[in-house]
Amino acid sequence: MNSPIVAVVGGGQLARMMAPAATALGITLRVLVESDEASAADAAHETVVGLPTDPDAIRRLLAAPHPDVVTWEHEHIPSEVFAACEDAGIAARPGAEALRFAQDKIEMRARMDELGLPNPPWHTVETEHEVEQFLAAHGGEAVLKTARGGYDGKGVRVIRAASEAHDWLAAAAKGGPRLLIEAKVDFRRELAVQVARRPGGGSAVWPVVESIQREGVCSEVTAPAPELAADLAERAREIALAVAEALDVTGVLAVELFEVEGALVINELAMRPHNSGHWTIDGSVTSQFEQHLRAVLDLPLGDTVAMSPWTVMANVLGGARGDLASALADVSDPGAKIHLYGKRVRPGRKVGHVTTTGPDRTETYRRAVDAAAIVRDGGAA
Amino acid sequence: MNSPIVAVVGGGQLARMMAPAATALGITLRVLVESDEASAADAAHETVVGLPTDPDAIRRLLAAPHPDVVTWEHEHIPSEVFAACEDAGIAARPGAEALRFAQDKIEMRARMDELGLPNPPWHTVETEHEVEQFLAAHGGEAVLKTARGGYDGKGVRVIRAASEAHDWLAAAAKGGPRLLIEAKVDFRRELAVQVARRPGGGSAVWPVVESIQREGVCSEVTAPAPELAADLAERAREIALAVAEALDVTGVLAVELFEVEGALVINELAMRPHNSGHWTIDGSVTSQFEQHLRAVLDLPLGDTVAMSPWTVMANVLGGARGDLASALADVSDPGAKIHLYGKRVRPGRKVGHVTTTGPDRTETYRRAVDAAAIVRDGGAA
Repeated sequence: MNSPIVAVVGGGQLARMMAPAATALGITLRVLVESDEASAADAAHETVVGLPTDPDAIRRLLAAPHPDVVTWEHEHIPSEVFAACEDAGIAARPGAEALRFAQDKIEMRARMDELGLPNPPWHTVETEHEVEQFLAAHGGEAVLKTARGGYDGKGVRVIRAASEAHDWLAAAAKGGPRLLIEAKVDFRRELAVQVARRPGGGSAVWPVVESIQREGVCSEVTAPAPELAADLAERAREIALAVAEALDVTGVLAVELFEVEGALVINELAMRPHNSGHWTIDGSVTSQFEQHLRAVLDLPLGDTVAMSPWTVMANVLGGARGDLASALADVSDPGAKIHLYGKRVRPGRKVGHVTTTGPDRTETYRRAVDAAAIVRDGGAA
Repeated sequence: MNSPIVAVVGGGQLARMMAPAATALGITLRVLVESDEASAADAAHETVVGLPTDPDAIRRLLAAPHPDVVTWEHEHIPSEVFAACEDAGIAARPGAEALRFAQDKIEMRARMDELGLPNPPWHTVETEHEVEQFLAAHGGEAVLKTARGGYDGKGVRVIRAASEAHDWLAAAAKGGPRLLIEAKVDFRRELAVQVARRPGGGSAVWPVVESIQREGVCSEVTAPAPELAADLAERAREIALAVAEALDVTGVLAVELFEVEGALVINELAMRPHNSGHWTIDGSVTSQFEQHLRAVLDLPLGDTVAMSPWTVMANVLGGARGDLASALADVSDPGAKIHLYGKRVRPGRKVGHVTTTGPDRTETYRRAVDAAAIVRDGGAA
């Protein structure tokens, strides 16, 4: 058969996890990986080694047989890549006009304000004086962010004094990433909601999930978010659909939210499969990876319903176990779905995740966390 | 990480469908494919092109970095391959002593008799006279089979006269496959049960399924088998476990059964993932493909429970649609899980399957059959 070809820029675990979905659907996944050791390198059907900043690598990614569509597993896509896609007549999804709101937090906040969607109080800052004024107006503590380049807690800093912004302000003045400052939201918890949208029209939203972060990195996700008021769940889904529509997102969009007293505030956007959606592989009829492929190929979207009353995903960050391959023998919970990303272990690096499903939330959560700890550190099976 | 390596002999859809499971677990799947066009070629992490009868191909399959284990996606494994594995000190699972009972139907029937497991009346035959005697003793109609080489209805012939056996008897006399004859079982329906067994001990059985064959080829599978008496379900699971244990099967074993008035009769054995178990990909906590990898690597086995009250798998055989890639746009049922094998369409060839899950059996069945028909022939979405 003449398989559709999806080209992906970026060879991390998000591209890797698209491969099983592509295999099932008979889609050829061609991935631009930074090296042969990349997480996606083995799993992809075809690989091109190179960086997105390398015009020759992009040329090979788009070469005949041409991909039907090009998509991304991260936001750091140079504008030249979009130009190359346009020159080649190949659709880039999500497109440059959408992706810039996931690339740049200042653009994102400004657009959310325009759309009347719930931002925290925020402002761009260029001087310590501006930082000081913002701190004074918002309780003496705030979140400083670089507009571009951040992920997993990087590019984010909680500050209590303007002096703590000094280095980033200096870097910004020298042409480094612009800065914004946000009021520290006194949230009850963090939620996330994912939606897929296809260019031909049609969207599908997964259940709203609760996400627990540790040191700025996602640690566990529970689907659905426990005891979430029905009106807030509905509001979260409305926000996701409104963002997807207004920004003309194609593919999967993740909206991270803060739940505050009876209301929601937008935290971040990602226009790709996202850690908060890994639970869908084992817990939903359609995984975010299959859905992303369907959406960017403008195919009918799959059912986003959960298969089980509770699904819990626990990340595995690099820990005491040096080689994760040995973990497979140690996890004896027969319902623990282990996902290893084929990456070298480094402390704190995301190297895998474990998902459990079940009728009891507490038990399902405990099983996921226990299995992830065994994968990470070893210990009793 | 130092991924475990599983080598697979045979590059059809069964090897292909092992790849997503291997990717999730961080296992490297190295597949011996007959050509670059093989179903598994794109999906496998590493491929070796060649036939199992080619010693050089086997050498490359077993070369450094050496696989941890070698397994099969079909039964047609020359004894030289087992010898090569033994020479290289690499485990072959299932082993030669087990696999011969899946390779040779005469050996299988004889062994089932020894074990006191339920065979139909049967006999080896070498002459028309023997065929005539068997027909006379069993109602004038019987099933003639070649002991080796059959699949999907090939090597099986229902006969009513000894003359219909003439060509096969002549071939057998000239060194072709030996023949056996079996009483035609007046069955209510066909069932199948799958079990996984690891060398270190431990087995796991999936729910018993009902399998509907059309023209000798599996057409639909319903899990669990509807309205199956509890004692028969228990008996089916006992048979599967007894066969796995007695034959020292490692990996996944499928036992195809006939349900007759209040009893079961063994039809065939397969020591590998099997068409009757494709439903487990979308319908069970652990798919037969993940479980086979776990079992042959002697890892803890996964949970075999169903995720939904009903799961129905419908095969897609080659039909009116010439290129299946176009089918993805035509199936609008959001819960239809489409699996395409990347094979060229030929009439009647297995080229994919569709799985649906749901609370209502009739509806779930209808959805699977409808979606498979759209994939096969096109038509309204």
